[in-house]
Amino acid sequence: MTDNPTQRPTALDLPQVDPLPEETARYFAICEEKLGLVPNVLRAYAFDIEKLDAFTRLYNDLMLGRSGLSKLEREMIAVAVSSVNRCFYCLVAHGQAVRALSGDPALGEHLAMNYRTAPLPPRQRAMLDFAVKMTEASATIEEPDRDALRAHGFTEREIWDIAAVAAFFNMTNRLASATDMRPNPEYHSQNR
Amino acid sequence: MTDNPTQRPTALDLPQVDPLPEETARYFAICEEKLGLVPNVLRAYAFDIEKLDAFTRLYNDLMLGRSGLSKLEREMIAVAVSSVNRCFYCLVAHGQAVRALSGDPALGEHLAMNYRTAPLPPRQRAMLDFAVKMTEASATIEEPDRDALRAHGFTEREIWDIAAVAAFFNMTNRLASATDMRPNPEYHSQNR
Amino acid sequence: MTDNPTQRPTALDLPQVDPLPEETARYFAICEEKLGLVPNVLRAYAFDIEKLDAFTRLYNDLMLGRSGLSKLEREMIAVAVSSVNRCFYCLVAHGQAVRALSGDPALGEHLAMNYRTAPLPPRQRAMLDFAVKMTEASATIEEPDRDALRAHGFTEREIWDIAAVAAFFNMTNRLASATDMRPNPEYHSQNR
Amino acid sequence: MTDNPTQRPTALDLPQVDPLPEETARYFAICEEKLGLVPNVLRAYAFDIEKLDAFTRLYNDLMLGRSGLSKLEREMIAVAVSSVNRCFYCLVAHGQAVRALSGDPALGEHLAMNYRTAPLPPRQRAMLDFAVKMTEASATIEEPDRDALRAHGFTEREIWDIAAVAAFFNMTNRLASATDMRPNPEYHSQNR
Amino acid sequence: MTDNPTQRPTALDLPQVDPLPEETARYFAICEEKLGLVPNVLRAYAFDIEKLDAFTRLYNDLMLGRSGLSKLEREMIAVAVSSVNRCFYCLVAHGQAVRALSGDPALGEHLAMNYRTAPLPPRQRAMLDFAVKMTEASATIEEPDRDALRAHGFTEREIWDIAAVAAFFNMTNRLASATDMRPNPEYHSQNR
Amino acid sequence: MTDNPTQRPTALDLPQVDPLPEETARYFAICEEKLGLVPNVLRAYAFDIEKLDAFTRLYNDLMLGRSGLSKLEREMIAVAVSSVNRCFYCLVAHGQAVRALSGDPALGEHLAMNYRTAPLPPRQRAMLDFAVKMTEASATIEEPDRDALRAHGFTEREIWDIAAVAAFFNMTNRLASATDMRPNPEYHSQNR
Repeated sequence: MTDNPTQRPTALDLPQVDPLPEETARYFAICEEKLGLVPNVLRAYAFDIEKLDAFTRLYNDLMLGRSGLSKLEREMIAVAVSSVNRCFYCLVAHGQAVRALSGDPALGEHLAMNYRTAPLPPRQRAMLDFAVKMTEASATIEEPDRDALRAHGFTEREIWDIAAVAAFFNMTNRLASATDMRPNPEYHSQNR
Repeated sequence: MTDNPTQRPTALDLPQVDPLPEETARYFAICEEKLGLVPNVLRAYAFDIEKLDAFTRLYNDLMLGRSGLSKLEREMIAVAVSSVNRCFYCLVAHGQAVRALSGDPALGEHLAMNYRTAPLPPRQRAMLDFAVKMTEASATIEEPDRDALRAHGFTEREIWDIAAVAAFFNMTNRLASATDMRPNPEYHSQNR
Repeated sequence: MTDNPTQRPTALDLPQVDPLPEETARYFAICEEKLGLVPNVLRAYAFDIEKLDAFTRLYNDLMLGRSGLSKLEREMIAVAVSSVNRCFYCLVAHGQAVRALSGDPALGEHLAMNYRTAPLPPRQRAMLDFAVKMTEASATIEEPDRDALRAHGFTEREIWDIAAVAAFFNMTNRLASATDMRPNPEYHSQNR
Repeated sequence: MTDNPTQRPTALDLPQVDPLPEETARYFAICEEKLGLVPNVLRAYAFDIEKLDAFTRLYNDLMLGRSGLSKLEREMIAVAVSSVNRCFYCLVAHGQAVRALSGDPALGEHLAMNYRTAPLPPRQRAMLDFAVKMTEASATIEEPDRDALRAHGFTEREIWDIAAVAAFFNMTNRLASATDMRPNPEYHSQNR
Repeated sequence: MTDNPTQRPTALDLPQVDPLPEETARYFAICEEKLGLVPNVLRAYAFDIEKLDAFTRLYNDLMLGRSGLSKLEREMIAVAVSSVNRCFYCLVAHGQAVRALSGDPALGEHLAMNYRTAPLPPRQRAMLDFAVKMTEASATIEEPDRDALRAHGFTEREIWDIAAVAAFFNMTNRLASATDMRPNPEYHSQNR
Repeated sequence: MTDNPTQRPTALDLPQVDPLPEETARYFAICEEKLGLVPNVLRAYAFDIEKLDAFTRLYNDLMLGRSGLSKLEREMIAVAVSSVNRCFYCLVAHGQAVRALSGDPALGEHLAMNYRTAPLPPRQRAMLDFAVKMTEASATIEEPDRDALRAHGFTEREIWDIAAVAAFFNMTNRLASATDMRPNPEYHSQNR
């Protein structure tokens, strides 16, 4: 349970494919170069390249692809959802992303601790309310919940994107907690 | 909220790409041929082919790819998780899959209603207990939970697969509920 | 935990009175004739005829007696309540009743899985909202909850009947789960 | 919401049958004579004599009929269940019964407030643990829960009786709360 | 777990300082004189006079000091909060205080069992709604909750006092339950 | 809701006593000198010096007084409890204290996000399990919970201290959330 970066990235004994396929090695090198680290979630998946690729493809479409939601907004959803699920990995990694993208260290803390305390414009608050309701009680979402987003100007595609990002972190939070995935320790001190 | 198959597959107004790319059209045709229908989840995603492809790639790896878990076991996890989340779409679609793969209509009902009532070997019960705990309280999963699976002979890869399938349906349940995704009505009467 | 109809109807070793009193035997014969089976709940109670008679008298008054609620509406309440309580026995038996009385197999599934997804007129939705709130948080029901029913045209007697039926299934759900009562397997395939 | 005894016994406008049938009038007179009052639950049901009779028959079998459980033990279950459900009517009426039958005013308070604080022999504690688990999470009861009762010497019939009484108060608690049933004010000061 | 007054006041073996400092002895003597007993919470703290004094100073300021809330209103908050937390000690001790200060024994019972059933003016109901929400879900309190109090005429200081009293009993309820603090048995029969 | 330090420390309009009494002014000056700031909780209380003094006396006894628990351990309890209650103020202020006292920035994050992920010796884990159970379900604490602490070598006084600190933060968390108390922004970047 220590954050030693030389350790395996989860509690499961699933060694990385060795050697990594060339394309994966290149992808990890790009991560090192751009982020200064290979996110442990990628190292965790690297025991099976098909699984790694399926995960990164979905991740990259959702978090980096075209969307009416800004990248920061998508990271805000990630943190608010991960806070409800108390996922240590995702709170550390995506909390850092919120701090970096917003330039506002306190915002990352608000969202990780209690998103209701964050000073947000009503549109973003509505977005997070929807994401959190999806996390806590998805079976109770009905048309008025979607209409509340429409009333703030969100388009049908943007509502899909809010739902898809919130849903995605309900997946990764659970996979991370179920496997005791450990975040790269570098995140803790970044953008404070 | 009616189950009219000519209607759009969710509450969002996101029309399918028209015409569908050739590869997608071929994939849908294969679904029609093998299942007698195109699952509405695919039609729901077909407003954006990149999103559709990312979803199907992950889905196919998890549910149809190589695994120490049988296809039936993966569908059993899908239904037990969807029952906790009360996702109508997934309970209908994957309940049918459990009935079809097991040849045991009652098993689908047990899992959709209360998996604890299902007559299961202890190994499968442990698998579902883990998946349900991930769904209800993932932040409380710790090493003893993983050890309980190991004690039933699950390998590290199989524990990953249990976790990954359970996590995946926590994503799709929420996306389906958030968008009011409607299952193809054909499922209801199949394999009863 | 298997559904073998020759087995005892619950996990408790409480053999049926043998021979059954004439009136009970006649009642069971009528069930066989009309339903094609003796519901296991009756067989479960048949270890004590006074208890059986008290139960059936209350049951018959509530579910078959005169009421402003149709028999289908009373069965709809039964299923929605049993869904919250995840009672396998009642979901199977009364889910079949909803399918039979409504002629709409999907309706039984909606109510068993998540009543909020069912396409219902607002009056019936309000009826089920009240029944579900009674099930989940009865101590929070107050005059505005009753007024919501009145606003949909329910009379004072009908409000009593909604409350009485919802309350009754909160009893039988718990007795069934506490004793592992097993539904007659015939229900599964009927009216699909 | 005041406790004026001249008021109707619930929030519903359902006047008592007038005049009462002779048998009912006699039953109410016996209550007056033996208890000094007609319990409001009977007055509440008296708008429909068939319903009143069905209720009292079940009540009398469960709470006053032959059982391996003493009358006090059945009342203890009633109060512990009603405490979980926070039913004002049942806590007041059956709390008084516990005080009267036990001669121990503090016991009624322990059970109404938090049964875990009551000084009880392990057998009665196990009985209440089962009744409370039935109330809070009946779908999770399985064979080990019944075996825990057997280990304390409860017979199969007594387990049925524990389950039946606990289930019954889950019904009456909800009917009382749903209709705002008000207890006779005399209970408050009795057996203190 | 019996209520023997000669026993120690909690489950912890923490004997009272012996002899008590003069000021403490005088304070306990005043309690005896005015209340007929030394509240066990004071005896429980008397193993450390600095802790006892810090507790009583805070208690006396909150419950007996100047405030726009009457002493009865502060005790009403105490009981409503303690009911949510099911704290036996505080329900017994402060339930008696509500009975004594209000002259209305039923009011103490309403608040201890389910405050929603109490016949209260809207202002006091709003006060208790706020206190109960603080107890159950403090992280969800936002400006509209405070505005609801302002709308009933509560001043900023009074809102602070409601919050401070509700918060205080969330402390003492937990300390009492964690240490199995037992109320003085005299409370049970007083003011009935 | 912004963190402007010139703003008032809560959402309530309760101006600080002006001028502050000499002793209070001296206390605030010491805070400035030692911490570089006056904690906003003290500024929040400073509308009433009697309340401020009662609070600080209790706080100082619990958090800074003699105890078998180290100051770090008491701060760890503060953060674990505040995490359950999602109190932004206390998580920010006491998370900083954990970072400062432990010299381990990650530890503060583990405790604020999900204490179960923190690499802790079993004795400290047991301490936090008790504090969290007190926070989530204090009414269910019984002798085995206290015995679990004794088994790790905690004395009766230390069990009291664990309980008293956990209880205290259940008070302050609620007072802070109820008044929207805002932490001094300096905390965010300290000891990262």
